[in-house]
Amino acid sequence: MLPTIAREGDIVVMIDQRKLPAQEIYVRCKTAAEVARAIKTMVIRGAPAIGVAAAMGIAIGMRNSKATGTQKFAAEFHKICELMAATRPTAVNLFWAIERMKRVFADAAQAGASVDQIKDRLDAEAQAIHDEDLASCRAMGAFGADIVPVDARVLTHCNAGALATAGYGTALGVIRGAVEKGKKVAVFADETRPFLQGARLTAWELVRDGIDTTIITDNMTGALMRLGKIDLVVVGADRIAANGDTANKIGTYGVAVLAREHNVPFYVAAPLSTVDLNTPDGEQIPIEERSAREVTHVGASQLAPVGARVWNPAFDVTPHHLIAGIITERGIFRPPYIESLRRAFEKETVASR
Amino acid sequence: MLPTIAREGDIVVMIDQRKLPAQEIYVRCKTAAEVARAIKTMVIRGAPAIGVAAAMGIAIGMRNSKATGTQKFAAEFHKICELMAATRPTAVNLFWAIERMKRVFADAAQAGASVDQIKDRLDAEAQAIHDEDLASCRAMGAFGADIVPVDARVLTHCNAGALATAGYGTALGVIRGAVEKGKKVAVFADETRPFLQGARLTAWELVRDGIDTTIITDNMTGALMRLGKIDLVVVGADRIAANGDTANKIGTYGVAVLAREHNVPFYVAAPLSTVDLNTPDGEQIPIEERSAREVTHVGASQLAPVGARVWNPAFDVTPHHLIAGIITERGIFRPPYIESLRRAFEKETVASR
Repeated sequence: MLPTIAREGDIVVMIDQRKLPAQEIYVRCKTAAEVARAIKTMVIRGAPAIGVAAAMGIAIGMRNSKATGTQKFAAEFHKICELMAATRPTAVNLFWAIERMKRVFADAAQAGASVDQIKDRLDAEAQAIHDEDLASCRAMGAFGADIVPVDARVLTHCNAGALATAGYGTALGVIRGAVEKGKKVAVFADETRPFLQGARLTAWELVRDGIDTTIITDNMTGALMRLGKIDLVVVGADRIAANGDTANKIGTYGVAVLAREHNVPFYVAAPLSTVDLNTPDGEQIPIEERSAREVTHVGASQLAPVGARVWNPAFDVTPHHLIAGIITERGIFRPPYIESLRRAFEKETVASR
Repeated sequence: MLPTIAREGDIVVMIDQRKLPAQEIYVRCKTAAEVARAIKTMVIRGAPAIGVAAAMGIAIGMRNSKATGTQKFAAEFHKICELMAATRPTAVNLFWAIERMKRVFADAAQAGASVDQIKDRLDAEAQAIHDEDLASCRAMGAFGADIVPVDARVLTHCNAGALATAGYGTALGVIRGAVEKGKKVAVFADETRPFLQGARLTAWELVRDGIDTTIITDNMTGALMRLGKIDLVVVGADRIAANGDTANKIGTYGVAVLAREHNVPFYVAAPLSTVDLNTPDGEQIPIEERSAREVTHVGASQLAPVGARVWNPAFDVTPHHLIAGIITERGIFRPPYIESLRRAFEKETVASR
């Protein structure tokens, strides 16, 4: 299993995803601020992994606290939560994880727990978020495997793999699930400019697993589909609105349009923590814009002249009508999503009572 | 005017398009073999520019010949023509230019011209191909300017600019023509992986001309169009089949599908030398595949892990039904292209008699 993120005592260890595949370097974060910076600078990325990292960052931040009274401790807690929330705006898993930590804190404080007891509860919750994410990915893999043809050529965009989660992956979890069920899968990975998550991360983790992987540049998707060489598209998600509109890595929308043009089923794989019923549709999802330098330079190479503007949105929104199904840890949801997703949460509420 | 390619005595001088925009370096080719190598390695690229380069390469190759008898001279000529024809398979302008040189050679030989006279004729023909291309681009600019809205946001893919031609450009010629007519144009340039002609070349030459230019990665086209920020797409072409199907830089097809999805008119700008009536449709256009390294590395940066496959077609085919018009030096041709393009050549034949 890939070591995307792990606790070592009071340290959060992450593989530096900016350096892969050329170098395998681990970043050791000793403070909440270091974790927040790692999220912001994309040492770690991928919606579920960001949620796990934020929770672990809060946990070690509070573990480091020297506060003895619950009031000062609570003030520090809320400051750290704000720090985490300011890292990246689009992936809702970040806010979902922070909310879980806040609820645990509030429940413990209300029950009269001591500072040390609250620290233990926060540690346990962060670990639970990690472990549940891993279990969710495996469940997604098992459900999603069914929609993968026996001998399939599957296109994916960005990295929705082990590196984007606590492990196993969402979209790549579906591919791993299909392979585990004995299906033959050839993966086509969009390189996914500008951060190159497809070429650098998806290809790296699939090659490690011995899965047949071909890298293409993002602009080759159309030609590949037109040649009839893609049977299925599976991607991850950073936020799914109540109506099924899905924010995911920039370029996902174009892939979805091309998939429909060529009658290729387009699926999203994501844990229910990615679904945000408070966001009615894709229009309401905030889209992070990142620095021009991500586009104008690769390593030391200057790709663009001085004087040209750059537009660098990190995500786009795929409207629900282009999505054949949303693969979650609780099964595959189908249109109309406005109903199927709402029912998913109603069931969850009932189940947890 | 940009110095894409020029003769200096018996030397062909080209700006090295692999090094732009970081460095402005000129490559001086002293032999036909050096010119062929420059075409193959993309020191010079762009269908019309390749045609000009091949003609100039043949001209200096024959200028260098030490043959005194026409038979040996002819043998050398055909060998050099074959060398040029083997450089790149997709752009038909290459073969068109070689054919023009062959016709001049054959006519001169048949008329009993001496070796020195044939050398002069070949020089003159190569220069004519260069000068006509420049004039064609200006004519395309004048015709094409009419389809550009007064305040337009124009997307282009790859580089169909001064650098892809003898000067002024085809698609960028249309933009320059619109600007010269006082229209306000903001250009969005797809960076165009893997060779990055958009970020490196299109942005460079437009910024030099003071034209507002924004670089996006190829996978941002869909999001940009969905936001309603593109009024028009204009691209170049490497080969246009008799039915209007157009081979152009990889990714053009995806842009065309997205343009139709968003009701954005999609135009091709190319000289009639790019139209190949002997190729009935896009299925018959040979698509060059280039080395994996173009995708896996940028400069010294390794983008992809060892063990992943790469697919790297240099071009794709946009079917004629996605093309609103083909802008040429003789006006804008409209569907059905199978008729309008054939008529264009019938007129040419009449006009040249």
